[in-house]
Amino acid sequence: MPVGTRATVKSLTPEDLYSLGAELILANTYHLWARPGAHVVQALGGLHRFMHWERPLLTDSGGYQVFSLASTSQVSEEGVTFQSHLDGSRHCLTPEEAVRVQEALGADIIMCLDECIPYPATEEQTRQSTERTLRWASRCQQAKTRSDQALFAVIQGGTSPELRRACAEAMVELDFPGYAVGGLSVGEPKEAMLEAAAAVLPRVSTDRPCYLMGVGAPEDLVELVGLGADMFDCVLPTRSARTGQLFTTRGRLVIKNSRHQEEDGPIDERCTCYTCRHYSRGYLRHLFLSKELLAYRLNTIHNLWYFLELMREMRRAIAAGNFAAFRTIFYREREQEEANWD
Amino acid sequence: MPVGTRATVKSLTPEDLYSLGAELILANTYHLWARPGAHVVQALGGLHRFMHWERPLLTDSGGYQVFSLASTSQVSEEGVTFQSHLDGSRHCLTPEEAVRVQEALGADIIMCLDECIPYPATEEQTRQSTERTLRWASRCQQAKTRSDQALFAVIQGGTSPELRRACAEAMVELDFPGYAVGGLSVGEPKEAMLEAAAAVLPRVSTDRPCYLMGVGAPEDLVELVGLGADMFDCVLPTRSARTGQLFTTRGRLVIKNSRHQEEDGPIDERCTCYTCRHYSRGYLRHLFLSKELLAYRLNTIHNLWYFLELMREMRRAIAAGNFAAFRTIFYREREQEEANWD
Repeated sequence: MPVGTRATVKSLTPEDLYSLGAELILANTYHLWARPGAHVVQALGGLHRFMHWERPLLTDSGGYQVFSLASTSQVSEEGVTFQSHLDGSRHCLTPEEAVRVQEALGADIIMCLDECIPYPATEEQTRQSTERTLRWASRCQQAKTRSDQALFAVIQGGTSPELRRACAEAMVELDFPGYAVGGLSVGEPKEAMLEAAAAVLPRVSTDRPCYLMGVGAPEDLVELVGLGADMFDCVLPTRSARTGQLFTTRGRLVIKNSRHQEEDGPIDERCTCYTCRHYSRGYLRHLFLSKELLAYRLNTIHNLWYFLELMREMRRAIAAGNFAAFRTIFYREREQEEANWD
Repeated sequence: MPVGTRATVKSLTPEDLYSLGAELILANTYHLWARPGAHVVQALGGLHRFMHWERPLLTDSGGYQVFSLASTSQVSEEGVTFQSHLDGSRHCLTPEEAVRVQEALGADIIMCLDECIPYPATEEQTRQSTERTLRWASRCQQAKTRSDQALFAVIQGGTSPELRRACAEAMVELDFPGYAVGGLSVGEPKEAMLEAAAAVLPRVSTDRPCYLMGVGAPEDLVELVGLGADMFDCVLPTRSARTGQLFTTRGRLVIKNSRHQEEDGPIDERCTCYTCRHYSRGYLRHLFLSKELLAYRLNTIHNLWYFLELMREMRRAIAAGNFAAFRTIFYREREQEEANWD
């Protein structure tokens, strides 16, 4: 069972990420399509060469950003019509276009176009959009021409366990090399998120990777790995790093707080990342308050290490057959010390 | 004859700088005094440990920033009274205080407090300030208590070759382990800068390092090394990097220009820096236009490598006894190709 986490990353080189043990990164198709354009990436040798990234690479379909960033998006059976957030130009993202662009970019894993609906949505709205996502997944399969890319399905169904279950079963019927759960972490209560994931995860084949999109906090990763999820992507580790919120086994630490001013110790005594091995909280606070570019980088290294280590620990616990014990200790450490931290 | 260059650096770690071959970096006393305060740096083990920098370190006296950044600075024989640019609080920087703060910070090379006068200045103004700088240098020597730091003199004298010469001779009389030329690159014509430096350089002992403060462009370094300068510091390589201006053997390149959009080649075909070995101009342009933090870092690595390589080439040419030939080739390359570059 592969267990990985992904996060869009600023300020780090590929070598920095290799040294953190990152094995797969995600690139956003919509952003690359808008600037510099897929034709430019293709002219410069494809995404791996463009970015100087020599390990596996995943692109999303572009759909999520079209729904969340572009202006006036309109969905029809054909696809999503939208205006670029950069220059206002009109475009239509269809399942076929999503595959074409991702083939031009050249990642190892590419994603089917899915319809992202807002939370809350009516049962009828959710049902119609889930069925459309299924038809779009089938069109993506048809449109695919490259044999060196793995096309993953995205399972939708809102917060309805029934629709989630039905969508998962229909996608498995179409036989994809991997499955993703989309449309979660969009504002629904945590119980609803876990219930929707629990309806999907047992139904996607255990020999295929299952990817929870857009999740999440350390507690979410622990719960969802417990339910069978293998892969994640989220801005949380890197965005928090840039705002000075650092993850530790004792909970989150806010580096700008004055209590860290003369602190000679690292962010986390138990952490072995580059930042914790060489820099005091006092220095990191100074860099952050000075808006020094190195602050973003050192904080990002620490937070990514925290998340990647958490995933590695879960992988070891699963392999050793003691995931339940791992989970108990994970929560106990946070409960004991979170109160007097930060 | 040691030949080095220094530049205040953003976005890079000490390890990045070691791999570029940097042997000495400069930290600004005024900035550290203003935030986080010398007492915080001292509490956190001194500047080397604070920054995780394990090679030689130089601090300036703080005077230059007091004259240029702080509000309402007023000079008397005692020192400079000024208000902090951060919180408006009033302080007095005396020669003794400059030494005390630099001893608390703990760099390997520390600098005497000197009076920085604007350009242009009258002969009388220049003479008085040069004499005061001499008296302050002597007071710094007296105030020094640590034996593990080298205190360098700063030679002033504006654009008057006579005052520069007299100041250099009087400073040599006081016997410092190193000499700096201050007050250049403040708006005077290039010929005046070179004339002032030429009045000083032959008069400071050839067995002591001579440091040209605040200089400069590649051409300036070549001319001043030719006159006998050993060390430099300047924001040019790093600040230019952050604004997307990259140095090459063919002159400066502006990375945002559209001609680089689909360029698969590196910044400089002849450069062996990390950035040039792995990234195309097309990718660097994309990172820069996207305001991606990695752009600042990759550009900074390239520009620092360019300047450090230039200094290494001059060192090799001097050692081989062919500096004049090096200088001829340096200009010929730029003349031939600069016109059709950028």
